[in-house]
Amino acid sequence: MRIGDHLLALVDRISPPTVVHAHCDLPCGVYDPAQARIEAESVKNTMEKMNASDDEAFKVRGILIKEERADLVKHHLWVLWTDYFKPEHLEKFPNLHDMFWKATKTAGEAKKTTDVAVAERLLSEIAAIDAMFWETKK
Amino acid sequence: MRIGDHLLALVDRISPPTVVHAHCDLPCGVYDPAQARIEAESVKNTMEKMNASDDEAFKVRGILIKEERADLVKHHLWVLWTDYFKPEHLEKFPNLHDMFWKATKTAGEAKKTTDVAVAERLLSEIAAIDAMFWETKK
Amino acid sequence: MRIGDHLLALVDRISPPTVVHAHCDLPCGVYDPAQARIEAESVKNTMEKMNASDDEAFKVRGILIKEERADLVKHHLWVLWTDYFKPEHLEKFPNLHDMFWKATKTAGEAKKTTDVAVAERLLSEIAAIDAMFWETKK
Amino acid sequence: MRIGDHLLALVDRISPPTVVHAHCDLPCGVYDPAQARIEAESVKNTMEKMNASDDEAFKVRGILIKEERADLVKHHLWVLWTDYFKPEHLEKFPNLHDMFWKATKTAGEAKKTTDVAVAERLLSEIAAIDAMFWETKK
Amino acid sequence: MRIGDHLLALVDRISPPTVVHAHCDLPCGVYDPAQARIEAESVKNTMEKMNASDDEAFKVRGILIKEERADLVKHHLWVLWTDYFKPEHLEKFPNLHDMFWKATKTAGEAKKTTDVAVAERLLSEIAAIDAMFWETKK
Amino acid sequence: MRIGDHLLALVDRISPPTVVHAHCDLPCGVYDPAQARIEAESVKNTMEKMNASDDEAFKVRGILIKEERADLVKHHLWVLWTDYFKPEHLEKFPNLHDMFWKATKTAGEAKKTTDVAVAERLLSEIAAIDAMFWETKK
Repeated sequence: MRIGDHLLALVDRISPPTVVHAHCDLPCGVYDPAQARIEAESVKNTMEKMNASDDEAFKVRGILIKEERADLVKHHLWVLWTDYFKPEHLEKFPNLHDMFWKATKTAGEAKKTTDVAVAERLLSEIAAIDAMFWETKK
Repeated sequence: MRIGDHLLALVDRISPPTVVHAHCDLPCGVYDPAQARIEAESVKNTMEKMNASDDEAFKVRGILIKEERADLVKHHLWVLWTDYFKPEHLEKFPNLHDMFWKATKTAGEAKKTTDVAVAERLLSEIAAIDAMFWETKK
Repeated sequence: MRIGDHLLALVDRISPPTVVHAHCDLPCGVYDPAQARIEAESVKNTMEKMNASDDEAFKVRGILIKEERADLVKHHLWVLWTDYFKPEHLEKFPNLHDMFWKATKTAGEAKKTTDVAVAERLLSEIAAIDAMFWETKK
Repeated sequence: MRIGDHLLALVDRISPPTVVHAHCDLPCGVYDPAQARIEAESVKNTMEKMNASDDEAFKVRGILIKEERADLVKHHLWVLWTDYFKPEHLEKFPNLHDMFWKATKTAGEAKKTTDVAVAERLLSEIAAIDAMFWETKK
Repeated sequence: MRIGDHLLALVDRISPPTVVHAHCDLPCGVYDPAQARIEAESVKNTMEKMNASDDEAFKVRGILIKEERADLVKHHLWVLWTDYFKPEHLEKFPNLHDMFWKATKTAGEAKKTTDVAVAERLLSEIAAIDAMFWETKK
Repeated sequence: MRIGDHLLALVDRISPPTVVHAHCDLPCGVYDPAQARIEAESVKNTMEKMNASDDEAFKVRGILIKEERADLVKHHLWVLWTDYFKPEHLEKFPNLHDMFWKATKTAGEAKKTTDVAVAERLLSEIAAIDAMFWETKK
């Protein structure tokens, strides 16, 4: 069983599929860590394709796209941190701030490297945030 | 001979038809209709909150946010249509173009109204695209 | 019954087909394929200058600018396709969807290459769209 | 000696005057005042539609779209002014700076009003820039 | 053991804790809380002008501009939090996370109101971050 | 009569000259040349780090970031030129237009080079604008 599957299985146990209720006072009120995860998957795939290629122009495009996608990861995580999470969540999850700080720093790190391990760490940090998020939805 | 055919014939003469191969050579290669769906849920929730409010400033913010979110729905759908779907998918799903045309037009319509039925139609059109998308992944 | 039809039938059951009227009720209502053409000319010129240069940093800037300009081509074409063209235009130009699909795919292809022939194909595909557009204005 | 001259003299002492050569060494090199004109037409049409409407939400969308379009007018004009026009053009058209200053100020003014005369003044200022632009192309 | 800790412990097992060194290896490396402050001053001034006006269209523009400026405040603060501040700063300023969380939440609050007190609270929270920032520069 | 004058005369006939009053009626009204300066410092630092590095990927990221930051310099300067400065300032500082034209051109030049002298010239041109700006605030 691969680590990705393992995490997903674990997450499934922790947060059973939840109906998305209308919440809080923003006009929008829809949040989903899937947005950060999808962009982080782009980062990882881009790294893998860059590592498998010898084409200089392709690698330049990879750097460019990775930069954009990692920025989107940061943006989606920052929005969750500031807009979704509330003081009562912090009481329940005292590591909340640290989890977001580390994950956004990892996203920044992913801009500087094509080391797939960094993208995988980013994905697992987002998975942890995702699990915490759905826990608050129960 | 219809005008459209005529134009195409003309273009064909200028630049001989090129086979566009199905390529997975994009640096990224990650697609997920969930991105469009999440933004469409924002559109729907924003409509509901606007309809439930008497606050003029709140309604203005709702229009503004709905405009942005509906634009993101369109963008994510356009990217799927042009970047993910290939000629062989069109053979399998001859309604492909129409499904995307209607869904993006519905997203445009959602900017002009707070009629939740429009947002619900948008969500079901995205759901159909989502089903088609995952069908191609099998 | 093909899968695409099946999906559409399903959607139809959920949300009964709505006639999308040809409307000019957008606040803006100004469209011009010149916007896509100007960006595509940038793409072509950038390719030519990249091919004529030996300067690595210049080529990197070229990739970057080409990426942005090709994205703008796609954006302007998508807006025309979804926002300007109406069902009655599709009746008159049955190739409408295909023309936009191909042209936006060519814009994507132009990101991956400095082959000027790709930019020229893009320009002729935009020229065909332009001709069709002005035909609808008569 | 005026204060402006004094400041310039000061700068000159810090960094000796550099001759800025007329260069066409930008990767792109494609400019067209049509881009500003198309957006200014949007501004004008939006004003007309707003004036003809009683729908509050429609008017809010009009303000929003007008703001965006007028910003694009400014952006396209600024790019022409800084990137396209060179010192030798200024010699030939001593009003160059003033023409751009006024036109971009008018675009800013168009954000604050639905007075179509402002949009028409903007369009004629862009037309004058367009005439000057094509004069330099001869 | 709380759920947040549990998740973090799990992530730690999968991807062993990585020491994030204080790095100045970013290409840029320039940070200044003045960027957030200037945008927050815009938010405050916009509120004051909205409160002093009876013009509906002016107020709509105010909401729009306030929304954009408050977003920029959030963006500049998030960048400082994730990109500039390092674990050794957190040791010295244990309130670091809370200061940024509150200030970005206040920026979000400023979108929903024209209560100048909110903008003033935002400015003083940015001033506290500014003081902490310059303390780390000594 | 020079061509520029001729064009202007023509425009004057079409739309009679309008006195543009010095207005502070923008919702925002906050301006600060520090915004341009901070981005220009990023440009300079990025150049220095690029020059000190042998890492190709790092240099590509440098080009990318320099391009973005130099664009922001231009944007902030253009906004000052068009939105803040008024005809009475031009009377006092007859070099106003030229100072902005040169500084924005230098920002464009900074995209094409890693010559730190260009970034330093940009910084001193911004410093002169800053001095002029604060002079008008007295």
